[in-house]
Amino acid sequence: MAMGLGLIGTGFMGKAHALAYRQAGAVFGDLPEVRLALICDTPADKATEMARQFGFSGARDNWRELVTAPEVDIVSITAPNGLHCEMALAAIAAGKHVHCEKPMALTLSDAQAMQTAAEQAGVRTMVGYNYIHNPAVQHARRLIEAGEIGRTVHFRGWVDEDYQADPELAWTWRAKRADAGLGALGDLGCHLVSMSHVLLGPIDSLVADTQIIHPTRPLASGSGRAAVENEDAASALVHYANGAQGTLCTSRSAWGRKNRLDWEVHGTKGMITFSQERMNELRLYRNQGTPGLQGFSTILTGPAHEPYGAFCPAPGHQLGFGDLKTIEVAQFLRRIAANEPCFPNFTDALSFERVIHAIDLSAREGRRVSLNEDLRS
Amino acid sequence: MAMGLGLIGTGFMGKAHALAYRQAGAVFGDLPEVRLALICDTPADKATEMARQFGFSGARDNWRELVTAPEVDIVSITAPNGLHCEMALAAIAAGKHVHCEKPMALTLSDAQAMQTAAEQAGVRTMVGYNYIHNPAVQHARRLIEAGEIGRTVHFRGWVDEDYQADPELAWTWRAKRADAGLGALGDLGCHLVSMSHVLLGPIDSLVADTQIIHPTRPLASGSGRAAVENEDAASALVHYANGAQGTLCTSRSAWGRKNRLDWEVHGTKGMITFSQERMNELRLYRNQGTPGLQGFSTILTGPAHEPYGAFCPAPGHQLGFGDLKTIEVAQFLRRIAANEPCFPNFTDALSFERVIHAIDLSAREGRRVSLNEDLRS
Amino acid sequence: MAMGLGLIGTGFMGKAHALAYRQAGAVFGDLPEVRLALICDTPADKATEMARQFGFSGARDNWRELVTAPEVDIVSITAPNGLHCEMALAAIAAGKHVHCEKPMALTLSDAQAMQTAAEQAGVRTMVGYNYIHNPAVQHARRLIEAGEIGRTVHFRGWVDEDYQADPELAWTWRAKRADAGLGALGDLGCHLVSMSHVLLGPIDSLVADTQIIHPTRPLASGSGRAAVENEDAASALVHYANGAQGTLCTSRSAWGRKNRLDWEVHGTKGMITFSQERMNELRLYRNQGTPGLQGFSTILTGPAHEPYGAFCPAPGHQLGFGDLKTIEVAQFLRRIAANEPCFPNFTDALSFERVIHAIDLSAREGRRVSLNEDLRS
Amino acid sequence: MAMGLGLIGTGFMGKAHALAYRQAGAVFGDLPEVRLALICDTPADKATEMARQFGFSGARDNWRELVTAPEVDIVSITAPNGLHCEMALAAIAAGKHVHCEKPMALTLSDAQAMQTAAEQAGVRTMVGYNYIHNPAVQHARRLIEAGEIGRTVHFRGWVDEDYQADPELAWTWRAKRADAGLGALGDLGCHLVSMSHVLLGPIDSLVADTQIIHPTRPLASGSGRAAVENEDAASALVHYANGAQGTLCTSRSAWGRKNRLDWEVHGTKGMITFSQERMNELRLYRNQGTPGLQGFSTILTGPAHEPYGAFCPAPGHQLGFGDLKTIEVAQFLRRIAANEPCFPNFTDALSFERVIHAIDLSAREGRRVSLNEDLRS
Repeated sequence: MAMGLGLIGTGFMGKAHALAYRQAGAVFGDLPEVRLALICDTPADKATEMARQFGFSGARDNWRELVTAPEVDIVSITAPNGLHCEMALAAIAAGKHVHCEKPMALTLSDAQAMQTAAEQAGVRTMVGYNYIHNPAVQHARRLIEAGEIGRTVHFRGWVDEDYQADPELAWTWRAKRADAGLGALGDLGCHLVSMSHVLLGPIDSLVADTQIIHPTRPLASGSGRAAVENEDAASALVHYANGAQGTLCTSRSAWGRKNRLDWEVHGTKGMITFSQERMNELRLYRNQGTPGLQGFSTILTGPAHEPYGAFCPAPGHQLGFGDLKTIEVAQFLRRIAANEPCFPNFTDALSFERVIHAIDLSAREGRRVSLNEDLRS
Repeated sequence: MAMGLGLIGTGFMGKAHALAYRQAGAVFGDLPEVRLALICDTPADKATEMARQFGFSGARDNWRELVTAPEVDIVSITAPNGLHCEMALAAIAAGKHVHCEKPMALTLSDAQAMQTAAEQAGVRTMVGYNYIHNPAVQHARRLIEAGEIGRTVHFRGWVDEDYQADPELAWTWRAKRADAGLGALGDLGCHLVSMSHVLLGPIDSLVADTQIIHPTRPLASGSGRAAVENEDAASALVHYANGAQGTLCTSRSAWGRKNRLDWEVHGTKGMITFSQERMNELRLYRNQGTPGLQGFSTILTGPAHEPYGAFCPAPGHQLGFGDLKTIEVAQFLRRIAANEPCFPNFTDALSFERVIHAIDLSAREGRRVSLNEDLRS
Repeated sequence: MAMGLGLIGTGFMGKAHALAYRQAGAVFGDLPEVRLALICDTPADKATEMARQFGFSGARDNWRELVTAPEVDIVSITAPNGLHCEMALAAIAAGKHVHCEKPMALTLSDAQAMQTAAEQAGVRTMVGYNYIHNPAVQHARRLIEAGEIGRTVHFRGWVDEDYQADPELAWTWRAKRADAGLGALGDLGCHLVSMSHVLLGPIDSLVADTQIIHPTRPLASGSGRAAVENEDAASALVHYANGAQGTLCTSRSAWGRKNRLDWEVHGTKGMITFSQERMNELRLYRNQGTPGLQGFSTILTGPAHEPYGAFCPAPGHQLGFGDLKTIEVAQFLRRIAANEPCFPNFTDALSFERVIHAIDLSAREGRRVSLNEDLRS
Repeated sequence: MAMGLGLIGTGFMGKAHALAYRQAGAVFGDLPEVRLALICDTPADKATEMARQFGFSGARDNWRELVTAPEVDIVSITAPNGLHCEMALAAIAAGKHVHCEKPMALTLSDAQAMQTAAEQAGVRTMVGYNYIHNPAVQHARRLIEAGEIGRTVHFRGWVDEDYQADPELAWTWRAKRADAGLGALGDLGCHLVSMSHVLLGPIDSLVADTQIIHPTRPLASGSGRAAVENEDAASALVHYANGAQGTLCTSRSAWGRKNRLDWEVHGTKGMITFSQERMNELRLYRNQGTPGLQGFSTILTGPAHEPYGAFCPAPGHQLGFGDLKTIEVAQFLRRIAANEPCFPNFTDALSFERVIHAIDLSAREGRRVSLNEDLRS
């Protein structure tokens, strides 16, 4: 019997989830079945309209009704970040599996509570770090694991956008710590941490800077300006558990960057680099072959890079952003059916998000922070 | 009442159509409704399995039953090219709208027959030239129409892959003219013609070369070799109706090219270039601004380039190959509902395919060929 | 005893020659010695000033005095193209070796006369096709000769600039056939032919289009417009003696192109591509290795690519435009000393320039032209 | 009367200086004259041979004789870094102007002594930070100063090579702190600091990591391994005096990087990025124009970017590595003649090199270091 999906939220990520759940089974062919049961938004007529557009059987304007509805087995949370915790805890309490957008929560305490609850309830969880499901990225991971570039010794990553680059953009709740939590680190930085984790494993300690580039912003009302309370940019020097070092950088005020999520992995035998704005390419240098012929190879993804072939049997035809979410959903459904842990589940995602909070803490206290510390204090 | 879709074929393009019809309404929100009515493949159990995977209500192993079924309003044809004509004529005879993959047919006579039948029957038609629906390409078209690069004076295009580059690849029906029709021109070249048409309008005349790079191929049986009868590569010098000139080139034996469909439009005030392998980018040079600051701008597609925003509200997140087919389907459904001609319909596609046959004719006869000639003789 | 250089002209190419002759011996260390003997320009005080700047022992304002001066062994001709023939013939008559800028002459008759005279006199000649001396290009040639990409089957090349792209640029002598000879073909196209020759060998026949994009230009005087008599753009379909086919394209009205001289060589085992605007890079694809790892390698030139190392012992540090002329000069001096033919000498260059005149002829007569024809008729 | 040059060293940098001093006057035309007086290397016959090749009047195998020779006005020091200080002090004591390769010295104490001596003696000094003289970089600087990208708020830079990437490369003196001083920071990192200084001004404080990636290397003798004492890689979080923040990273063990010296400057109105491996290009994004047309412009250097035009009057033809040294020499000669400070002189270079020593200190002591500290303790 098909699992029922309850989706909370119909914005950018809500639509991405809806499309991915609609499509995953048709793309992969061998997935556990899923029904689009309920969708939730406000006001009620918007929920109804979205149910019609996305093909959900029912609509709700109260998320509490959705998370407890018997026809719902999986709750997908794409509401504003500040609501994730309460929604997730309610869904877990109702025995639902939970698919939650990143970041898990505004604070580590909340994220920790979510992780504990999920673990105790034994439900499956998945957090929306969709970029790591890119076949190009997974191929890089496999190359590293196979030793193609030797021992990994260094990592550099950057995740930048320009949605807060304009100094005269109006102040919004995004700039308020109580409502939005971290700034660029929460929106963007945690994606980079997820990449770094997939490629080099966990981080041990770090020292970091954060920067508020535009300290105030004009009020939309037109009178006066309000303070920006969270970081526009952050940079960290990190030490990995495997002995590697590296740098993680993020900015939401980097003009011209639309979805930059670039990284490079330095190995003792080679180098791999990637750029999200050209997400269907991987660049690989290996110390082998004739000297005069050595160079970075630009590899275009294709069926040789699973699960690209489920979308298209011909190489170089390119996946898009939405396809990454479809892969994420497929993994979630498979693991639920197999009763196995998902990646990244609340435990994994908590470890990613501890890193961005450690960056914030290091910058505030001006000292190196260990990931073993109690970061919530 | 929703229109019913009957889909013939479940391979590369069959799956692409199925996914696009499933998804288009959810992506766009304001489309006429479509039901996934029937799917056809052989043997019957494969058809049944595909119906389950893609969500079609019924399955058939005989396409004639599908095209005449009362629950089918639109017939989507993704069977081998040699079958398109018979299928399309039958569907048209049954009063169905027809969505046909490119090329329309192996011969111009067949394509002409399809066009005539559709016109007489008054049904809507659409041919699968999906690359022209890319928001980047449509944006280029709009820039040209708005005069941003002045009068268009020159065009150069290339469409290359490497699926026939290996000289020791086994001989298949693709190499046989009676079964496959044209070679690289039919598989790839016609896509380039569609781009050229969208950007510069119709071609008046041309002179061309074709080339069989690998004259024989080993038989799969292992004994002996068989002749390759159709072109591995072709090149043409073209004159446009608007006075521009240009070159069109294609190869199916171009190592390293996975889905190259590149072009450049030369205008009197600027230049636009595009590369399908980086399909979310457009490069624009305009003769304006400070000399020391002039250069090609790399524009990443985003919501400013319709209908990108229907897929994702954030720029630089990238569409994929499948999304182009979704846009094509959306256009088809809208035009059917509006009772207006689609683009490119059988009439448009016939004009594209006349160009590839003119290239073949020019190469065979060693002379400039006018597109006004009767190319079927 | 050092050879004496007499240099005619001090413009773009004159300076390039002066700098190259000054520097070649210091770069290479093992070259035959050359003295900067005489330089010629008008008026006399300009010649004197240029002699001072470039370090020539003497100055002349009459080139006839220079070509017959006893202290001159090599005559370098960088005067306007229409003067090359007379100057070269006089220098040859005086028994001098001749280094002439491209194109050799405005007409094939003149170029032929130069070639015949040089051959009969037994002097060494070199023509300024400097781009082919790029270590990246020579490395490509060696890779091809070593069979790294198999049999070469196809070539495509483009050479574009935008110095005549602006429709409102004033009319000059460059647009007049009697004074300037060919248009884009003479300025740019012949460079591409030299590349094509180095990589694939001689062309057998071709069919071509030429295009005058801006038929008239405003007179500098401000009153009225004058006709443009030579081509702004040209395109050709070529057949090589080795059985390969290809396309050659050029435009002097291609906005945004500053020194585009790009090409791709298709082989049965691989592909090499090059772009002059990134002249220190070569891109190579070979059909070998693991499928998921295949891609174009971007090779940065370095000491492994001779004679890069004479300029710099570290890879990736980049040569510049001037360095190509220095390599050309070094080759010329070595061959003079060794009493061996240079490449490309007047015989080679004549064969290149026959191609551009064949393109012009083909376009005028609307027919395929053989390179064996008497193209001067 | 022409100034006399005495050049110490004939290796990579020695040759670069020789070529640049030979060529600068001919390139620029309006420079103070310079004579190639003496060159020094050992053994004596090598010095003599190099004098012949490069065109110096005399040769010495004892640098002390060169620095005190009356025919020498400028001493160019390209000997191993550990010798710079003694040589420079001797040259200054003899009243010579000094052109010294980077880094100035192995220790800050030595560099400080050099700076003090030069200042007291009133001689002109120049340090070989040649990359900052690139017309592309100077154009970026001018754009920033003109406010084209608003207030500069963030900087990121990387300078990487792979000459120490191979773990099995033999141990050399480069790995020994007493002989080589710093590792990647001294070879590469200081170049990045010079770029950062030109673009954003001085750094106030920083916190840093250094990393020895290959802790031991095999002895060339074949028996056993020796320790690597200086850093293979380093990363720093920096605060600028102007309020900006940023990251500086370097590695000499980064496979595939041949001469990467990349940076990006984030401004409140735009972004500029640069890559040394494509040193003739600048990428600029400005927040202006129609949304759908915004993107990074790739600007090819040309005569609009001084002093490119002194080398070539046509854009896009590209300068090379050697040309940067020629520009440096031209600046030095001009400033000597004008009796004005050069950039970067010993005072400037000392400030650059204080930064790399501060990075080293911060990593060793695990704390933020101010550039106002006495870094020599």
